[in-house]
Amino acid sequence: MATKAKIAILGASGYTGSELVRLLLRHPRVEIVLMTADRKAGQPMAEVFPQFAPFALPDLVSIDSIDWKTAAVDLVFCALPHGTTQTVIASIMKARADIKIVDLSADFRLTNPADYARWYGHEHHALDVQQEAVYGLPELHRAAIKTSRLVANPGCYPTCSILPLAPLLKKKAIETDNIVVDAKSGVSGAGRAAKEGSLYCEVTEGIHAYGVAGHRHSSELDQELSLIAGKPVIATFTPHLMPMSRGMLATTYVTAKRGRTAADLHGIIAQAYAREPFVHVLPLGQTPQTRHVRGSNLIIIGLVQDRVPNRVIVVSAIDNLVKGASGQAVENMNLVLGYPETLGLEQIALFP
Amino acid sequence: MATKAKIAILGASGYTGSELVRLLLRHPRVEIVLMTADRKAGQPMAEVFPQFAPFALPDLVSIDSIDWKTAAVDLVFCALPHGTTQTVIASIMKARADIKIVDLSADFRLTNPADYARWYGHEHHALDVQQEAVYGLPELHRAAIKTSRLVANPGCYPTCSILPLAPLLKKKAIETDNIVVDAKSGVSGAGRAAKEGSLYCEVTEGIHAYGVAGHRHSSELDQELSLIAGKPVIATFTPHLMPMSRGMLATTYVTAKRGRTAADLHGIIAQAYAREPFVHVLPLGQTPQTRHVRGSNLIIIGLVQDRVPNRVIVVSAIDNLVKGASGQAVENMNLVLGYPETLGLEQIALFP
Amino acid sequence: MATKAKIAILGASGYTGSELVRLLLRHPRVEIVLMTADRKAGQPMAEVFPQFAPFALPDLVSIDSIDWKTAAVDLVFCALPHGTTQTVIASIMKARADIKIVDLSADFRLTNPADYARWYGHEHHALDVQQEAVYGLPELHRAAIKTSRLVANPGCYPTCSILPLAPLLKKKAIETDNIVVDAKSGVSGAGRAAKEGSLYCEVTEGIHAYGVAGHRHSSELDQELSLIAGKPVIATFTPHLMPMSRGMLATTYVTAKRGRTAADLHGIIAQAYAREPFVHVLPLGQTPQTRHVRGSNLIIIGLVQDRVPNRVIVVSAIDNLVKGASGQAVENMNLVLGYPETLGLEQIALFP
Amino acid sequence: MATKAKIAILGASGYTGSELVRLLLRHPRVEIVLMTADRKAGQPMAEVFPQFAPFALPDLVSIDSIDWKTAAVDLVFCALPHGTTQTVIASIMKARADIKIVDLSADFRLTNPADYARWYGHEHHALDVQQEAVYGLPELHRAAIKTSRLVANPGCYPTCSILPLAPLLKKKAIETDNIVVDAKSGVSGAGRAAKEGSLYCEVTEGIHAYGVAGHRHSSELDQELSLIAGKPVIATFTPHLMPMSRGMLATTYVTAKRGRTAADLHGIIAQAYAREPFVHVLPLGQTPQTRHVRGSNLIIIGLVQDRVPNRVIVVSAIDNLVKGASGQAVENMNLVLGYPETLGLEQIALFP
Repeated sequence: MATKAKIAILGASGYTGSELVRLLLRHPRVEIVLMTADRKAGQPMAEVFPQFAPFALPDLVSIDSIDWKTAAVDLVFCALPHGTTQTVIASIMKARADIKIVDLSADFRLTNPADYARWYGHEHHALDVQQEAVYGLPELHRAAIKTSRLVANPGCYPTCSILPLAPLLKKKAIETDNIVVDAKSGVSGAGRAAKEGSLYCEVTEGIHAYGVAGHRHSSELDQELSLIAGKPVIATFTPHLMPMSRGMLATTYVTAKRGRTAADLHGIIAQAYAREPFVHVLPLGQTPQTRHVRGSNLIIIGLVQDRVPNRVIVVSAIDNLVKGASGQAVENMNLVLGYPETLGLEQIALFP
Repeated sequence: MATKAKIAILGASGYTGSELVRLLLRHPRVEIVLMTADRKAGQPMAEVFPQFAPFALPDLVSIDSIDWKTAAVDLVFCALPHGTTQTVIASIMKARADIKIVDLSADFRLTNPADYARWYGHEHHALDVQQEAVYGLPELHRAAIKTSRLVANPGCYPTCSILPLAPLLKKKAIETDNIVVDAKSGVSGAGRAAKEGSLYCEVTEGIHAYGVAGHRHSSELDQELSLIAGKPVIATFTPHLMPMSRGMLATTYVTAKRGRTAADLHGIIAQAYAREPFVHVLPLGQTPQTRHVRGSNLIIIGLVQDRVPNRVIVVSAIDNLVKGASGQAVENMNLVLGYPETLGLEQIALFP
Repeated sequence: MATKAKIAILGASGYTGSELVRLLLRHPRVEIVLMTADRKAGQPMAEVFPQFAPFALPDLVSIDSIDWKTAAVDLVFCALPHGTTQTVIASIMKARADIKIVDLSADFRLTNPADYARWYGHEHHALDVQQEAVYGLPELHRAAIKTSRLVANPGCYPTCSILPLAPLLKKKAIETDNIVVDAKSGVSGAGRAAKEGSLYCEVTEGIHAYGVAGHRHSSELDQELSLIAGKPVIATFTPHLMPMSRGMLATTYVTAKRGRTAADLHGIIAQAYAREPFVHVLPLGQTPQTRHVRGSNLIIIGLVQDRVPNRVIVVSAIDNLVKGASGQAVENMNLVLGYPETLGLEQIALFP
Repeated sequence: MATKAKIAILGASGYTGSELVRLLLRHPRVEIVLMTADRKAGQPMAEVFPQFAPFALPDLVSIDSIDWKTAAVDLVFCALPHGTTQTVIASIMKARADIKIVDLSADFRLTNPADYARWYGHEHHALDVQQEAVYGLPELHRAAIKTSRLVANPGCYPTCSILPLAPLLKKKAIETDNIVVDAKSGVSGAGRAAKEGSLYCEVTEGIHAYGVAGHRHSSELDQELSLIAGKPVIATFTPHLMPMSRGMLATTYVTAKRGRTAADLHGIIAQAYAREPFVHVLPLGQTPQTRHVRGSNLIIIGLVQDRVPNRVIVVSAIDNLVKGASGQAVENMNLVLGYPETLGLEQIALFP
């Protein structure tokens, strides 16, 4: 029997943390040996997330209690808040060269320090470490991820938006100055922090836009779309909060280059992802529902020709906690550890 | 004490029908004297909608049982399905010149018969009557509504989309060839018909686009926007179904004419609606939630300058059953009957 | 035109506070002159509850900023947290004999100081004031409320449970030692405080019991049921939290005294409430839905004969924020001020 | 590599059908070879349930098109409506002695033909076959299931209610004449049929009791509880419909025999299920949430001592589509086929 990699989860008391636990408990090649949650240190996981009561798991500890030099850990998932992450990861990497890290925060996603400072309001505290980070979108950066020590797991909005746009920009099939991404997110994206805006009564039975023209994930979108297009791209991006725990839908409006049809664009995307295990492209004219990826690591993409000539409507759906966070993190772990990319990620969507 | 107008509601067993009852029961100048529901004829309203059990209401009857020549009715609300409406209304208008009609179906909204035939799949059966119809958006057509015998109450999507766009097009402040309306609707818009797609399990905790590039309300949008702009306008329009009973949000992306700022556009809209009782314009940079109009006849509009130069994001919110249907119908009734426009429509949003 | 009473709302930034504002803004005989919210003092109400943006309202102030000796206020609604309420109300009553108070907290509901201390964990700090308080369930204590200076507005669970049980206990029609109340509540009952347990993701699509065998509202139930029965009654009471903003359903299991049928019990309840404006009793065999009272001040009660001989199932439904809190508070205000009891409370349920 | 059993699913277009597909697609020892859905015969499963689009599955066929004598099928899941099931299963069993059947309908659950006739309104049409059926609650009838040709998979309500009560009745620890089961169910229990009562707008944000004192599952409860108690038991049983797709909570009120404490009862249940893979008993005083079993085959049980002496409150939670239907069906399949009972049923609850 193959040995199991020893896994630590920093920040296990949040929703991305618990989603990592859900996935890793059934992953045949890993073992969760360490879980931290500073404010809940000392508690068993079953108190924090009772769905894990039937399972054997280590109790939560504080980060400070860990001696990284001696910890029997092969890979660390870091699900800590933005900002604090930098220092923690820098100290781990300094202590041990052999530990791999998949970071679910935004701290190492932006390659340009000025972008980080502008969008996150302070200088980056671990610029040297950031040089090593790879943006963990396997469909775009698989080779680099495999050999990386530090994977910056993408945000949910960028994952959902970049994947359908990337092949179109790569093939120069669309105009770069008229991209509109209208995105709708489930509430778990806001985390488990007790905030008024995440209360049931503030979210159920309604919808609203937020962070209009100013959401931090715009910076990731800009970076990756520009990288692919080979020139600066600024996409219009409007996130909306809606009453669902999980799920994300991006309705993206693009202008096909003159002479390009929706069928052309569909063909480009379908071909680009023909061998991708976690990308499913619907027949032209069909669009996905978020329900059909709930709990699964899939992204489903659909395209429709608009009534306005040259305009094409692209709809993409993910589970924000899986392909948009912890599932993709496990996918990156698989790549880093040399496992089959789909291992432990075969869950089928829970519908209804 | 003022006399009360005698009101008939055709199709009272659907959601727009019950919403009319809710509003009219508390309207000081009307009396519901007749309610029809063919499949539920003979039943008391309390069986069909138990929330009305405490109130005195006539039992439901079939339409065929009514002799319009002698019926003691001043105004008819028609909440019947598209298509059957035409014949019914034509026969009422033929039988009686003194009965006013507010029609909540789509049958008399399109002025061009070819448009009707194209979007609804058959020739219009009452073209002569249609000549009399006025498109019942009071903010645009108030004077004509007041003297009309037949008001074609607008669809929910057009109401929510046209109101923010109309002043901008009138003032030629935006480009007419790059309008994108991304709309999100509550489920009650699909009515009370027992359809798989409206089942709880098919709608809760998720979102999907539908009727992409082909929703019938596009025809109303085209008609009214073109009328205002003075030239053909085709807006990109994508409706989404989401888990809320009531409510509609339209996120509209427009390109300001060169030299125009978001502040200019905001000023145009704010000024246009400064005296409108049912339009509330938020300060520049703020956007509305559907929850804040739940159960009320208001539309709330907000504008934000995008990061993309010249692009402005406009968000508008209504309750699809009130300003998007029955509330606006009562507003039209008030105009037609010479009542104050806000009479019986002062409900404040139910939040939470 | 009649003069309007001047109303203050202490704690206007919570859900019961905003519900008071919704109701009072449309009440013809009152004027909101003062609203407090300590942490949000200085803010306009439109920032705290944007649904009120279209309405003229005083800005929020801190309680300490009010000089009660000179304040032009006729009646105070107190929607403050349990505990702090006592001191505030005692100081108002000391400063001014002419101000009436309707208190929505639990502070003055329990007549026995020992009960208060046991259930709330500390001695009561205003026992003299408590002597004046009347338990504000109009159907039971109307006469006393009318002449009271201080009305202790009942909790939502007691309101929903006591009203169906009171006539049965009064007529000695049921056993007093086998009453089971299984109650289901909407989330707004937990208030607007940012607590993990009230987050959307923790509440949607599920249900759980809480405070099993130990919920504080048990003390109100015990007190009122014992008072009516003329002997000590302890009801089994299990509250459940479920995914709805508003609404409360109590399914109550009672044992009819030997010889009594469900029809007898139904008759007793129907007769007891025949003239009550806010109690609607369904025909025997029918039971209510919470949706049918959403936003209204009604309680609907239904009874069914169980298969187990002598057992009768009683189901009652209220909107926890209206009849269960702010609506009943306005009802009490009407009684205290000598207004018709239903004034401003004629809202019809919002369904769907 | 072990051979895979060939599985047919009759009625694959409903929610229990799709849930079987979800589970079986990831079961290592089975292969879905046949799926029927009469009204959707000829369609690919991806049209009926788009979440299966990425998977290879046989197209849907009509039942009549199958020749059972020659069909290469080892086991049939029957997820057909009550009533029609009898004839279909009788014909399969007549055609082939070697095919095993797990029936998810109610047709073979009641051992007494008179009970069936009374609760289902017509004589049973396959009484001979019924003699062979075993009530498929593995925790109670495991041995008989293993050797059965026909397993009658229990209803969701009985599963959720019987499991906590069985050990208490077996040990004669509770009174048999004062059992009250207050149950709350998700909407998927009503199936995918397009019924007004299952529409989103009729279910969201509210709760109501239904089938009060007359739900068909009462007959299963009576049968099994009486069997265990060794004397006739009639439990009071009130089902409620609430806004969740999946999940079921039963709050059960029992009277401990004189001298028995809640701790005694807890000990009895905990000991009875100590080795059961799908039963998790919480520490005394804790109660479960439905969310913590969403998508999993677990039942979680908790007990609390009530304030009323001798009364104990028992709360149990299942996913109605898994342990309450398709998961338990797969569990029964594993028993019938001689596989490990937990094979393919290791899914961890999806929360949030």
